[in-house]
Amino acid sequence: MTLRNDLHPDAPIERWGVAELELDGPDGTEPTTRAHLSAVFESGATRIEVPGFWDGANRYAVRFSPPEAGTWSYRTASDAAELDGIAGVFDAVGPSADNHGPVQVAAMYHFAHADGTPYRPVGATVYNWIHQPDALVAQTLDAVADAGFDKLRFLVFPQGGAHVEYVPPRFPFARRDDGSWDVERPDPEFFRAVESAVRGLLERGIEADVILYHPYDGGQFGLDRLSEDEDAVYLDHLVARLAAYRNVWWSLANEYDQLERPEERWDRVFQQLVRIDPYGRLRSIHNWIRLYDYNKPWVTHASIQNGWAVAERGRALIYRDAYRKPIMLDEIQYEGNTAERWGDLTARQLVHRFWLATCDGTYASHGESFLDENGSLHIVVGGAFRGESPGRLGFLRRILDEVDGAGLDPIDKWWDETSTVGIPRRHYLRYLGTSAPASWDAELPQGVVGERLEVGDRFAVDVIDTWNMTVAENVAEFALAEVHRNFATAPVTVPLPEGEAIALRIRRIG
Amino acid sequence: MTLRNDLHPDAPIERWGVAELELDGPDGTEPTTRAHLSAVFESGATRIEVPGFWDGANRYAVRFSPPEAGTWSYRTASDAAELDGIAGVFDAVGPSADNHGPVQVAAMYHFAHADGTPYRPVGATVYNWIHQPDALVAQTLDAVADAGFDKLRFLVFPQGGAHVEYVPPRFPFARRDDGSWDVERPDPEFFRAVESAVRGLLERGIEADVILYHPYDGGQFGLDRLSEDEDAVYLDHLVARLAAYRNVWWSLANEYDQLERPEERWDRVFQQLVRIDPYGRLRSIHNWIRLYDYNKPWVTHASIQNGWAVAERGRALIYRDAYRKPIMLDEIQYEGNTAERWGDLTARQLVHRFWLATCDGTYASHGESFLDENGSLHIVVGGAFRGESPGRLGFLRRILDEVDGAGLDPIDKWWDETSTVGIPRRHYLRYLGTSAPASWDAELPQGVVGERLEVGDRFAVDVIDTWNMTVAENVAEFALAEVHRNFATAPVTVPLPEGEAIALRIRRIG
Repeated sequence: MTLRNDLHPDAPIERWGVAELELDGPDGTEPTTRAHLSAVFESGATRIEVPGFWDGANRYAVRFSPPEAGTWSYRTASDAAELDGIAGVFDAVGPSADNHGPVQVAAMYHFAHADGTPYRPVGATVYNWIHQPDALVAQTLDAVADAGFDKLRFLVFPQGGAHVEYVPPRFPFARRDDGSWDVERPDPEFFRAVESAVRGLLERGIEADVILYHPYDGGQFGLDRLSEDEDAVYLDHLVARLAAYRNVWWSLANEYDQLERPEERWDRVFQQLVRIDPYGRLRSIHNWIRLYDYNKPWVTHASIQNGWAVAERGRALIYRDAYRKPIMLDEIQYEGNTAERWGDLTARQLVHRFWLATCDGTYASHGESFLDENGSLHIVVGGAFRGESPGRLGFLRRILDEVDGAGLDPIDKWWDETSTVGIPRRHYLRYLGTSAPASWDAELPQGVVGERLEVGDRFAVDVIDTWNMTVAENVAEFALAEVHRNFATAPVTVPLPEGEAIALRIRRIG
Repeated sequence: MTLRNDLHPDAPIERWGVAELELDGPDGTEPTTRAHLSAVFESGATRIEVPGFWDGANRYAVRFSPPEAGTWSYRTASDAAELDGIAGVFDAVGPSADNHGPVQVAAMYHFAHADGTPYRPVGATVYNWIHQPDALVAQTLDAVADAGFDKLRFLVFPQGGAHVEYVPPRFPFARRDDGSWDVERPDPEFFRAVESAVRGLLERGIEADVILYHPYDGGQFGLDRLSEDEDAVYLDHLVARLAAYRNVWWSLANEYDQLERPEERWDRVFQQLVRIDPYGRLRSIHNWIRLYDYNKPWVTHASIQNGWAVAERGRALIYRDAYRKPIMLDEIQYEGNTAERWGDLTARQLVHRFWLATCDGTYASHGESFLDENGSLHIVVGGAFRGESPGRLGFLRRILDEVDGAGLDPIDKWWDETSTVGIPRRHYLRYLGTSAPASWDAELPQGVVGERLEVGDRFAVDVIDTWNMTVAENVAEFALAEVHRNFATAPVTVPLPEGEAIALRIRRIG
């Protein structure tokens, strides 16, 4: 047995890292002889019970992510003598420089890492990437990271049906003679590939939005037709393997309402996750036509498909009011050239939608759907991006990362036709979109909540070209001369560059 | 004792009408000598327990609305011997011609009376009308009915503060010597005035959207500062008096979040209503900035303040998806001329917003806020309308009443930039709003759910002028020539009249 740093075997175990305890036990190839395994980790008054899992032949493992630095003791429990009562002590050191801890909900509508570092999702989507040949998997990882995306949505179960040309060599479970799946016989190689993907993303600072179930089978594999009990067996196994990775988010399904299951079944999956995930990783579910009730207590954020919501200003912010949770618009149509209307946006349209999402106080995810020579799509298989939006979305992420606060909220929601977001009296972002004014007369909305603007408040104006990815800093300064009930003005006119998709950033300087 | 038809004393008691049982008991002026009273009504297997109430001096009463025609028996229960065990039998006849039963939720997003007759709310709002001099009360009732409104929102507790010049002679409770309210001493005269308002509306076919609590006190009366226990005593009394009237809706509060109470307190008010209202009348609550969670099970429909949601197309429908309940936009700013931005819409703007609400599959309410010579507003005191919108909203109601089905739903939500609503393959409504095209090329959206359009389907086109209140029927007919995946077309061009605010109604004729 060894307890080691799962990501860097020779490095000490660190806070929010992964400690893996490898154990030899009874051969578990047959479910009837397989042992149950769990472990308790304790430090001071903190006690965390962690599920273990069988990892092939006689190998068993427990993964644990220490939520605090300090000395931890552990002890296993098992119905197999050789796995039971194994105990030890280790020290978890403080997090290394790039480890800010898991992402959590912050300030109601936003996210932050556990150490307080804000996290601004600019997501990508490649549903079936982990089921591609190794070289393509590696290429996808690099492409997503290089573009600057910091979240990737993907399926655990392989995708079948339309736009899928490649049948993967590995499946999650063994098949019975009748062709049905035996969820009691997971394929360790399959799940190691999932873990490898999660680790690869973690090393690149990318959150893994792991989609647990999906309807994209097209009658090919049948993994969309497991029973509720079978689904639960799989989820126990997956969570025991993945939950310790701090970049994991649980997405119950993509287009869950295509699966035609009663909503209560999804409620029970959420409840299972709450019960078995020791870390309470983020939890959501993604719709086709019918939205799940994101107000339910086990949902941490809304993960919505609705391109219409960001096709014009002022729609997406209604989700904020309805759910009072972070709004992730994880499907807003894709950049590409499919005949289907969900995949025919231009890059300009998609980038525009991201900025509209931003100016409604919400977040969005990208996908690319140019048809390749095999009839497949990047959104399915991954690889290098062909589109023109990814770099520009990385640019948006840099602008978001420069926000000095929890996130951008509508300043005067329901009234401000300019859709200015920000932090009252500190930081404002205003996106001019398809209007292309020659100049801007200094005016800021006065919100109903938060600090109120005062005469004499001084601001500096940056002009952002969202398409050409330039920031002209400090092109003007102004001091507020008049403060009205709902807005404040200064007698300053800021000339603007020609063209659409210009944004103004207005930051307080005195 | 008598059991009689409360609305028409000489007429028989009818289904969905009100039977009132008047009883003499111990003098209840002092709460300590007041009797408790309830009654059980039974017919076949149906058993309904109804709370009674003290109505001044030694008068007590029980009101009951029979949900079915037939023979009903009843028996009272009381801690006072003279009120206990009083029993009888009566026949409830079928409903009279104008009695369609209480309004209930229908087809998820709409309403219908209990007999199946669709109900399309086109609401009005006069918060403080029942607390005005009698002549003005009567004038308000006539004005609201004459305009064609079919729902009226109003406060039970009198309004104080801004825009309120008149102090009413009656209050709900007696005051103690220290000026505080004694909720155990309700003023029967006050509550009779509330009942009279509800009955007046019922006689005119108008739903009474009764606002139970409100924050508009301005420190004047203190009815916004009752304790939770005091609120509950009042609500028991009010429900015992009002619940039997089939036109009653319960609105827990206007701008509830101005009252700075924990949300759980509102949850408990809903739960109290569920417990004490024998009929399950419609229940909602109305927001200022923060929306209540309308997904909670005791909420029947959303009653939202947000003018922004109907200032442009495509916003309000997001509430439908979030709540999957009828969306009543009960405050979308008012027609008027106040300095405050909530009350300065033109009639054209307000009528436009109603049509946008309609074309998002939602409903809206009107209010008028022209300043009168006393500094008050119609929205507060009532009286005749000065504005130009009410008649046009009555016209909208007539158009809605001509819909042959449960209601208008977005045909292809999230995709259809024309915001066409209706019933697939049967009835379509498309509002052209501020665009003013010279003609319309026949095209209908093909929705994802419901009946699909087919080549050869024949339709007739009506052109509606929403401002001038005209309907040009059957100006064109067409047969679908091409049916694509998402839309269908015919080679027919319909010339349109000049000007904005034109709507098209397209109905299937073969």
